[in-house]
Amino acid sequence: MIDVGIIGASGYTGGELLRFLSKHPHVEIVAATSRKYAGKPINRVHPHLQDLELEFSDVDIDNIDADLIFTATPHGASMKIVPRILEQGMRVVDLSGDYRFDNIKTYEKWYGIKHEGSLDAVYGLPEIYRDKIRDAHLVANPGCFPTGAILACIPLVYERLAETFIIDSKTGVSGAGIKPTTVTHYPNCSDNVIPYNVTDHRHTPEIRQELSKKYQVSVSFTPHLVPVIRGILTTVHTFLKEDLTPRELESIYSGFYEGEPFIKIIEDGEMPRLSAVRGSNECHIGCFEIDDNGRAVIISAIDNLVKGASGQAIQNMNIMFGFDEKTSLDIPAVHP
Amino acid sequence: MIDVGIIGASGYTGGELLRFLSKHPHVEIVAATSRKYAGKPINRVHPHLQDLELEFSDVDIDNIDADLIFTATPHGASMKIVPRILEQGMRVVDLSGDYRFDNIKTYEKWYGIKHEGSLDAVYGLPEIYRDKIRDAHLVANPGCFPTGAILACIPLVYERLAETFIIDSKTGVSGAGIKPTTVTHYPNCSDNVIPYNVTDHRHTPEIRQELSKKYQVSVSFTPHLVPVIRGILTTVHTFLKEDLTPRELESIYSGFYEGEPFIKIIEDGEMPRLSAVRGSNECHIGCFEIDDNGRAVIISAIDNLVKGASGQAIQNMNIMFGFDEKTSLDIPAVHP
Amino acid sequence: MIDVGIIGASGYTGGELLRFLSKHPHVEIVAATSRKYAGKPINRVHPHLQDLELEFSDVDIDNIDADLIFTATPHGASMKIVPRILEQGMRVVDLSGDYRFDNIKTYEKWYGIKHEGSLDAVYGLPEIYRDKIRDAHLVANPGCFPTGAILACIPLVYERLAETFIIDSKTGVSGAGIKPTTVTHYPNCSDNVIPYNVTDHRHTPEIRQELSKKYQVSVSFTPHLVPVIRGILTTVHTFLKEDLTPRELESIYSGFYEGEPFIKIIEDGEMPRLSAVRGSNECHIGCFEIDDNGRAVIISAIDNLVKGASGQAIQNMNIMFGFDEKTSLDIPAVHP
Amino acid sequence: MIDVGIIGASGYTGGELLRFLSKHPHVEIVAATSRKYAGKPINRVHPHLQDLELEFSDVDIDNIDADLIFTATPHGASMKIVPRILEQGMRVVDLSGDYRFDNIKTYEKWYGIKHEGSLDAVYGLPEIYRDKIRDAHLVANPGCFPTGAILACIPLVYERLAETFIIDSKTGVSGAGIKPTTVTHYPNCSDNVIPYNVTDHRHTPEIRQELSKKYQVSVSFTPHLVPVIRGILTTVHTFLKEDLTPRELESIYSGFYEGEPFIKIIEDGEMPRLSAVRGSNECHIGCFEIDDNGRAVIISAIDNLVKGASGQAIQNMNIMFGFDEKTSLDIPAVHP
Repeated sequence: MIDVGIIGASGYTGGELLRFLSKHPHVEIVAATSRKYAGKPINRVHPHLQDLELEFSDVDIDNIDADLIFTATPHGASMKIVPRILEQGMRVVDLSGDYRFDNIKTYEKWYGIKHEGSLDAVYGLPEIYRDKIRDAHLVANPGCFPTGAILACIPLVYERLAETFIIDSKTGVSGAGIKPTTVTHYPNCSDNVIPYNVTDHRHTPEIRQELSKKYQVSVSFTPHLVPVIRGILTTVHTFLKEDLTPRELESIYSGFYEGEPFIKIIEDGEMPRLSAVRGSNECHIGCFEIDDNGRAVIISAIDNLVKGASGQAIQNMNIMFGFDEKTSLDIPAVHP
Repeated sequence: MIDVGIIGASGYTGGELLRFLSKHPHVEIVAATSRKYAGKPINRVHPHLQDLELEFSDVDIDNIDADLIFTATPHGASMKIVPRILEQGMRVVDLSGDYRFDNIKTYEKWYGIKHEGSLDAVYGLPEIYRDKIRDAHLVANPGCFPTGAILACIPLVYERLAETFIIDSKTGVSGAGIKPTTVTHYPNCSDNVIPYNVTDHRHTPEIRQELSKKYQVSVSFTPHLVPVIRGILTTVHTFLKEDLTPRELESIYSGFYEGEPFIKIIEDGEMPRLSAVRGSNECHIGCFEIDDNGRAVIISAIDNLVKGASGQAIQNMNIMFGFDEKTSLDIPAVHP
Repeated sequence: MIDVGIIGASGYTGGELLRFLSKHPHVEIVAATSRKYAGKPINRVHPHLQDLELEFSDVDIDNIDADLIFTATPHGASMKIVPRILEQGMRVVDLSGDYRFDNIKTYEKWYGIKHEGSLDAVYGLPEIYRDKIRDAHLVANPGCFPTGAILACIPLVYERLAETFIIDSKTGVSGAGIKPTTVTHYPNCSDNVIPYNVTDHRHTPEIRQELSKKYQVSVSFTPHLVPVIRGILTTVHTFLKEDLTPRELESIYSGFYEGEPFIKIIEDGEMPRLSAVRGSNECHIGCFEIDDNGRAVIISAIDNLVKGASGQAIQNMNIMFGFDEKTSLDIPAVHP
Repeated sequence: MIDVGIIGASGYTGGELLRFLSKHPHVEIVAATSRKYAGKPINRVHPHLQDLELEFSDVDIDNIDADLIFTATPHGASMKIVPRILEQGMRVVDLSGDYRFDNIKTYEKWYGIKHEGSLDAVYGLPEIYRDKIRDAHLVANPGCFPTGAILACIPLVYERLAETFIIDSKTGVSGAGIKPTTVTHYPNCSDNVIPYNVTDHRHTPEIRQELSKKYQVSVSFTPHLVPVIRGILTTVHTFLKEDLTPRELESIYSGFYEGEPFIKIIEDGEMPRLSAVRGSNECHIGCFEIDDNGRAVIISAIDNLVKGASGQAIQNMNIMFGFDEKTSLDIPAVHP
């Protein structure tokens, strides 16, 4: 049994952490902070958690005693509190972008914020860094787009089969967070498809960093907002450097992800789809088609709030504390 | 540990039975039948159940050996096989309308089908009939609209506070089943609200039967299809026979449902909403407002496929076999 | 040719006024005001009006010289400027609630605002008040819910066939205006149905006033937000005082609305639907079913931004200036 | 005044032809055929056309006397009737794929149908072939995806600035037609994004043909179904052969499309969006961003049923008969 705190529990990723952790047999939630809703019951903000008898608190990090803290705080805010948490001997899974970059300069360029100083963080993509995560004190939980994109591309990188990736992603609106904006206003985004940050999205350098660990690859990334609540469908267009059949391509992926608890290779002409991962921590990868220009298409589907955020954070926690990796995450998606 | 079979496992209610039962610690699924998909893996039809290593079968009921059979078969089809299942000593939860009526004539009038003969069935609404369900051999699982409507109205009937109910329900499209029709065609039902069977929906007599057990009440029911995947929001308009405050009304409901594991009374000016029950077996009841005409409004929200069908069926199974009533159903809703 | 100004042109109703007026053969738009967007081209806010070469201005009402002003201003704001406009000899169609009430006290009670003083206004429902509108200097354009509700109920009032109306309305999200809020945030209202102001919506007294001109009727009104961009579907539940067949009921409506250019009686078992009026000024009325409790159901469908707001405002303008009533409004709905 | 017939008037493109033609001042509709609905009023299928007093007929093409016939018939069906229509001296705009290809072999390979024989057809993209359309007897109306894709790419081809195009399109569900299927079933496609025909969509060779008229270019095309009723958003990823600024890129497009009545170049950091063309014949083109890999992104938005089908067909008709090109199409989009 471990004690866990959540800093920033009133947003969507906070709500998802609470949804899974409230049913985790080895976890006690000792704090769920929110300045705005301090003293209010959790279900005032998260109406689906009627059974959770817990209130938001405004407790300072110095007054929390826990084994692990999830920092579901905005970019820039995490780096102000994570060092203090670590100093107190607590481990951290940080859901912001603050500790994802090997190079502080990259962060500062793309986020436009002065960085307070790097820390020894592990990039929390279990399928690649499971061993390092086990002993990490600070895990930088990946971004939502990078999770879907990296998992769809990386087997080709490891096999040195491609070096140019054009990644066209479609994300649900919950990815924009819980705060209403003009973009997320229902009459604006319903029945619409909205490209945004077409060539300058902050997740671009994160994808590039992880795909270029073996050798330098070219990554072009463009996200679109689609009228969907949850989910990211990532369409990867790439040009293969070898002549492969779709079947061979598929078997490279099956081999690469063998034994992975949350990766499912979709076969038999079926396609990954958002409803098949809705609410779950799975990542579905499929398509594997190749056209007569030698362009291969790989498609992945994740729930942006789960495998793309809070579910993956809990997966990391399970690894860090030696729990079965699927604990509390072994819940099927809600389809249709 | 019990052995369970599902007759008609390829529809939406079949999929939901599989979603919950596959994680039920005391259940082994011994058969999931589908004539159309026999021999195909479950995930060909239910893409969210990638972990479930099971195939559809076309096995005859006489060749299934189980403790309980769920018949997720259409109206008219259930009554052809349920008697044979019972004869073999297996218990049954039937999800069709075939055994819901005390009076066969009512069934025949509203369903337009000759009934093959009544059986000793218990109406499977645990909040009302829990004791009878425990020992039942045949449970008639309630309809989706009746579940939401009866739970919203019945405390007023028990207290003899109302005798006229105008029930205006809004249902998600999954209630129409897995088979595509003109009505469920996306361009037709998206961005639309479609009233249907405005005065003659088959669930009307079912609601009437259950609300009139104490004394004769008048029930008028009108359903609407809304562009929602799952969920039924039921708006009950009624005229109170006594002068009550909203607070008193609320406390009547809180008292009536005290200790019920899946009923949540929504307070503090919050409203029941579909996303707060999406994918879960909960029924949220709230509103309790009264206007200056003495009209009271009670609102309930359920997931039509869960509390309105398969979740409630499993709740009934848990009661029938002495399991904790929440087993495998203790999963929070997916919001947003 | 008349000169027309729009005060408050950057909201949804402003956009709709511009959409129709920009193609009106007898209208020149001399001003479209917006403090926030002054100097910006119209298409920065209304991206569908790329052809309209016009900028928002922040001109004071005293500096506009027009034959007619549309005040698409919020409740409370209209009454501060309408008297000044009238003093300058310009006619006004006001889209707010400020001049809809015969009794200022009713307004003050339901709107919670002190009224600045009543004016000689005509309630702008052409189907009832066409003759008065013709010569009016100030037309109070009806609310969106009242338009759908009154048109669905009033033939029964004129025929003294009913005196109790339970009106259950479902509105698209554009009815909440152009400003993002928690309620209109896509993840909150998509895949949801949200009842609001269940017994105390401000449109209640407006419906009551218009339905009680002949004799006192009882009106209970409850609106719901549905995941639809545009449209209001109004379900009227009423109890008939005479024994009528559905056919007789239908012919009462056909007779009442004979010759009305924008009212369509939907027959032959078809139902009014939002897509059939999407973007158009039509109001479809149908259903006419009666159940075995004597409850009759009448259903109407309008586009809340057109017949429920700006289209009706232009219809009023056409009447006031002797233009053919359909001028610029004779555009079919966009279905699907 | 010309007489016009529509063969296949009960589908979505038939409905859109009727929506615009019914308000066309120079057109009389002499036939709207449908075998299934012959004798039924138009509004039984197209509920938004309540004012159109016309019935579907099952008249044979030999018994229609018209100046122009629109064949809104399926692939394969058009080529059986178009020759007969032309023989009678009537002109034709064909909305199927049957006459779009210069090379019959290409058609036969991608459509899997034996072609009955080519005819002297003009590809009906007015922005490129206006002069030829003017005198054409047979116009092959472009496919929906090709319209959006070609218009977004072709200025770069004319300027010899790019030779590789990766086209990632997102289409609304009405593109699948009026017939319900598993894919278009609301619970399947709502809240989902569905890639399909990822490398082998029939519109691929059509795009390739038109983009390769100047020199051979490489076109890779992948469509996705998004939960939208109408609209195609096309994201073109290409690599520029010269070093250009976004501003220079934009001005190439502005120059290329100068004077085009239905093409709008979207500037000032705004993006093309589906709601800005919903229901209208406009094509919006914008974005013009270039990333640090030299990848340029061009985005176009059309309504698949209008500029992508029936609106463009009427635009072609207007050109063929010397009417103003905007006649009956000069209707703003419906936003929001």
